[in-house]
Amino acid sequence: MALSTARKLQVLSPVPADIDIANSVEPFPISVIASEIGLDPAHYELYGKAKAKVLLSAYDKLKASPNGFYVVVGGITPTPLGEGKSTTTVGLCQALGAHLGKKVVTCVRQPSQGPTFGIKGGAAGGGYSQVIPMDEFNLHMTGDIHAITAANNLLAAAIDARIFHESTQSDRALFNRLCPADKEGKRVFAPIMLKRLKKLGIEKTDPGELTPAEVKRFARLDIDPAQITWKRVMDVNDRFLRKITVGQGPEEKGMVRETGFDISVASEIMAVLALTTSLADMRDRLGRMVVGTSRGGDPVTADDLGLGGALTVLMKDAINPTLMQTLEGTPVLVHAGPFANIAHGNSSVIADQIALKLVGEHGFVVTEAGFGADIGTEKFMNIKCRYSGLTPQCAVIVATVRALKMHGGGPEVVAGKALDHTYKSEQVDLVKAGCSNLARHIQNTKSYGVNVVVAINAFATDTEAEFSVIKEAAIVAGAFDAIVCTHHARGGAGAVDLGVAVQRACEQHRTALNFLYPLDLSIKGKIEMIAKSYGADGVEYSAEAELQIETYTRQGFSGLPICMAKTQYSFSHSASLKGAPSGFTIPIKEVRASIGAGFIYPLIGTMSTMPGLPTRPCFYDIDLDLETGRVLGLS
Amino acid sequence: MALSTARKLQVLSPVPADIDIANSVEPFPISVIASEIGLDPAHYELYGKAKAKVLLSAYDKLKASPNGFYVVVGGITPTPLGEGKSTTTVGLCQALGAHLGKKVVTCVRQPSQGPTFGIKGGAAGGGYSQVIPMDEFNLHMTGDIHAITAANNLLAAAIDARIFHESTQSDRALFNRLCPADKEGKRVFAPIMLKRLKKLGIEKTDPGELTPAEVKRFARLDIDPAQITWKRVMDVNDRFLRKITVGQGPEEKGMVRETGFDISVASEIMAVLALTTSLADMRDRLGRMVVGTSRGGDPVTADDLGLGGALTVLMKDAINPTLMQTLEGTPVLVHAGPFANIAHGNSSVIADQIALKLVGEHGFVVTEAGFGADIGTEKFMNIKCRYSGLTPQCAVIVATVRALKMHGGGPEVVAGKALDHTYKSEQVDLVKAGCSNLARHIQNTKSYGVNVVVAINAFATDTEAEFSVIKEAAIVAGAFDAIVCTHHARGGAGAVDLGVAVQRACEQHRTALNFLYPLDLSIKGKIEMIAKSYGADGVEYSAEAELQIETYTRQGFSGLPICMAKTQYSFSHSASLKGAPSGFTIPIKEVRASIGAGFIYPLIGTMSTMPGLPTRPCFYDIDLDLETGRVLGLS
Repeated sequence: MALSTARKLQVLSPVPADIDIANSVEPFPISVIASEIGLDPAHYELYGKAKAKVLLSAYDKLKASPNGFYVVVGGITPTPLGEGKSTTTVGLCQALGAHLGKKVVTCVRQPSQGPTFGIKGGAAGGGYSQVIPMDEFNLHMTGDIHAITAANNLLAAAIDARIFHESTQSDRALFNRLCPADKEGKRVFAPIMLKRLKKLGIEKTDPGELTPAEVKRFARLDIDPAQITWKRVMDVNDRFLRKITVGQGPEEKGMVRETGFDISVASEIMAVLALTTSLADMRDRLGRMVVGTSRGGDPVTADDLGLGGALTVLMKDAINPTLMQTLEGTPVLVHAGPFANIAHGNSSVIADQIALKLVGEHGFVVTEAGFGADIGTEKFMNIKCRYSGLTPQCAVIVATVRALKMHGGGPEVVAGKALDHTYKSEQVDLVKAGCSNLARHIQNTKSYGVNVVVAINAFATDTEAEFSVIKEAAIVAGAFDAIVCTHHARGGAGAVDLGVAVQRACEQHRTALNFLYPLDLSIKGKIEMIAKSYGADGVEYSAEAELQIETYTRQGFSGLPICMAKTQYSFSHSASLKGAPSGFTIPIKEVRASIGAGFIYPLIGTMSTMPGLPTRPCFYDIDLDLETGRVLGLS
Repeated sequence: MALSTARKLQVLSPVPADIDIANSVEPFPISVIASEIGLDPAHYELYGKAKAKVLLSAYDKLKASPNGFYVVVGGITPTPLGEGKSTTTVGLCQALGAHLGKKVVTCVRQPSQGPTFGIKGGAAGGGYSQVIPMDEFNLHMTGDIHAITAANNLLAAAIDARIFHESTQSDRALFNRLCPADKEGKRVFAPIMLKRLKKLGIEKTDPGELTPAEVKRFARLDIDPAQITWKRVMDVNDRFLRKITVGQGPEEKGMVRETGFDISVASEIMAVLALTTSLADMRDRLGRMVVGTSRGGDPVTADDLGLGGALTVLMKDAINPTLMQTLEGTPVLVHAGPFANIAHGNSSVIADQIALKLVGEHGFVVTEAGFGADIGTEKFMNIKCRYSGLTPQCAVIVATVRALKMHGGGPEVVAGKALDHTYKSEQVDLVKAGCSNLARHIQNTKSYGVNVVVAINAFATDTEAEFSVIKEAAIVAGAFDAIVCTHHARGGAGAVDLGVAVQRACEQHRTALNFLYPLDLSIKGKIEMIAKSYGADGVEYSAEAELQIETYTRQGFSGLPICMAKTQYSFSHSASLKGAPSGFTIPIKEVRASIGAGFIYPLIGTMSTMPGLPTRPCFYDIDLDLETGRVLGLS
């Protein structure tokens, strides 16, 4: 049953730098990986030697066959250093595929390119549990984020251009330009215009038949510049674009406007890509994205601007997930990477759908949910699984001794600063106290009806006594099992026990998926259900938030799921409240919506959607070996 | 000798829409095209079914073998409708490859994606002479322009971030952050920092040994915000980004600055890609790109900012040309697409180099030079061939009856407006008068030492009498031959005579390549030589231009070739001066430089580097057929 592509790792100690490990392994030709997982060459397209785009026809062909087991990896509330969720996701799959002879696909997010050159470095896992080639994973990949940037910004350009052209033309001139006469002198509506007419309740298909009032309603979107919510994006950490003024050129006739850029992965189009289930569904979602509000108070969509089709064309290849491989030769699908606060932070529905068919009955799909489980797993269940209709059997929660010490009262952990001694010595009591955090994540996650396996991501300085405390607390809180793992240092071999536990958890799963809230609850009702799961006593709304909730409800969007934009560093809204806090009130400052993606997102605090570059960015170390063509210095 | 991939076209009359013709043909798998041209699978990477990236190793392998014939396609001074240069380039190759049994590669530019959604539509040729798949050619292709956008904007972000960090830190703090202590407490310079030290004349490699004055010089780039020349780019027609103010967020502490976006193909990185000859050369060029000037008057480069290596990494796949095919199955290399005014408007040196080896002795490489021959062919010779060391044997000049009528005094031709009757009826005298324009292009082009073949791109309304006049005038002006072509309506079959003439012109070529000016002439001297070739009496410099010429000369850049940024609608600076004007003075408003790409570019008039969207952009018609996955409405 073992994979013929399973690769025996030569493990070194101490563990070398990630890029050195990644570069030490020659990837299998991706066609070999594809064939191993049963993909017919008709259902994928090569992108270089180590990447392929899996076509949607792969799913269509297998539609009737059974799904494999569906495992989601979340984490406890992390330190700013991260607790190894991606690494555990990859390590678990290497164990299942290369050591336990299972069919397995890892589904992960495509990382944003911006931070790769800033502070953070890449996001392909770490140590001996990585996706390779690491440079291709982190840079460009197969162009999906570039496609999102292009589509997002075409829509942004269309908004300002439309306002400009509307401001300088009469209703009739505008209408005549929108519906120009063809060679026979006859005006026709483009098919996309019929959508707008229908929305306006105008049941005519001949432009000549519109009354002047209808001409005005059709041709004039009358977007209120102060109520444009659509921003431009760039996949670069460019802090000086956070807030800008556009339109200062003389040809733009003084139509200046304040706006800003987000990083590309914060685009709603990324969330659409992550949540869509088919080409037709993506066309619909892209078309109904709301970019702003008219002066009359109506939401203006991409289709109103005539752009839903063009955006779909720009995204037609991005909808196909990218096949890559782990260090041990197991298959990986990389697809979508929405923000985990203002969006839902999970990789794509489509990749999971395809993967579940590819692995088939008794196989495993392991997918990661961004941020701590309070956010990532919650959104996985209530947003992603709601749209996909898929049911997970098992949820892994990644915990570290380090983070639990912090939750138990250990000193603050700050990225870039040396770790306090506490974190390098045995501190059983701190760990024990910190397990309150783990326990609440277990209880919350279990309530969805999945079996919860705790993966203790072991560090060299951790002790057996500390592990025992965690295992005991996990079982008491209702975990199916709790396993110490060493996949960072040892690859899949270090996660074999975890793999066995996950297999048992899946096989013994019997419960239906329970959502945390029904969709037909009011927006506030849903927000309050989620806040309760954080341990909050209640929710407080700003006047602005109240107004926005009212508006979205009036516009008919109250039936959407909720995507909380909250810090991942606490169950609460306050990053300094560690452990399992209670008795706090969640303050909702603002409520926004991604109508095309399909969720309402309340903002709890200020979310940064455009990172910056430090004084010495990572890029100083990055270069190309001109002899070998290898990328140097990527971390 | 005929290509096994040669495809017999089923030609319809009247000629259907470009996208319908393109969609009516199933492309050969690109591996078939690759094998036909003798490319070993080790030397290319597939990007989907119909595109492949040709690796530089393909050239390395064939380095010692002889080049084929090298043909450049230019045009007379065009009308705003374009005279079919791309179409003729493709048609000629279809004739040579699919009808005359020659080995041939077409080298063309990758079009900007922005205009595809604006007014212009695609750029893959037209009628029965096109590059396919047309949608993949026009949209994303293999991501090269996206890579340029990413690299350009990372550099832009780094400039503002650096100014910001320098403004808030002491010399020592800045230095310590740039050279942080490693685990052993030792500070080290990153390799790229050694380049800057060397440039500064500091011969030390241990950070600890720098004097406080050296620390300051090294760590403080001291970029003058008012003298930043590097702009951000986007491959979207977004007129509201032409002039913007950045840095208005509260975290940027009031460091606002006016700047703007260009369209991505206007980036200097695009010009670098087009002119580079190898990976090492690209690394050098990217590193020495000048982004602005320090307060002390020194040019600041990408390498000074620590970015030359990272930019090379972002561009490492873009350096490989993309293999595609024509409608008749002949191979095409698509690579780079620099602006034809502020840059040199030619496809890449690397694609031509590889193609010349692939076709080998007696084979043909046909490459297009953007704009009229006064600009495109001039830059092809004096910039592109100077850097590549390649020698063309034949230059094709594309002429139309329509454009010659305009030059002879016909009414103005305006895009989007109906053509005057003059252009649809026989007007021998107008054509004859207009041939002065053709004659000057022939004489100028011939002076480089190539044989000139005139391709008369025939329209249905043209007459034999008109053709005769053109042929005669061409021969009188020194053309090797002049041929009427119907490749738009008939594909390669319509350009067989042209193919035969081009073959003869190449085989009978005996002259060395004569550049218009030597590089060691002063900047002004070179500008004046080019102006003379336009028919100008002299050149007039603004005070600003004088100062800039002085600065570039002082900085040691006066040995670079000149890239005139001039309208293509007249030999002169004034678009309304048709025919072969003389007695005018060329006004140089401003002089800029692309130091990494390797040219100085004087601006004659205002060049728009960011197009806008019209009231009804093309995107209204673009959609995806959700059943077939085909792109609809692309023009």
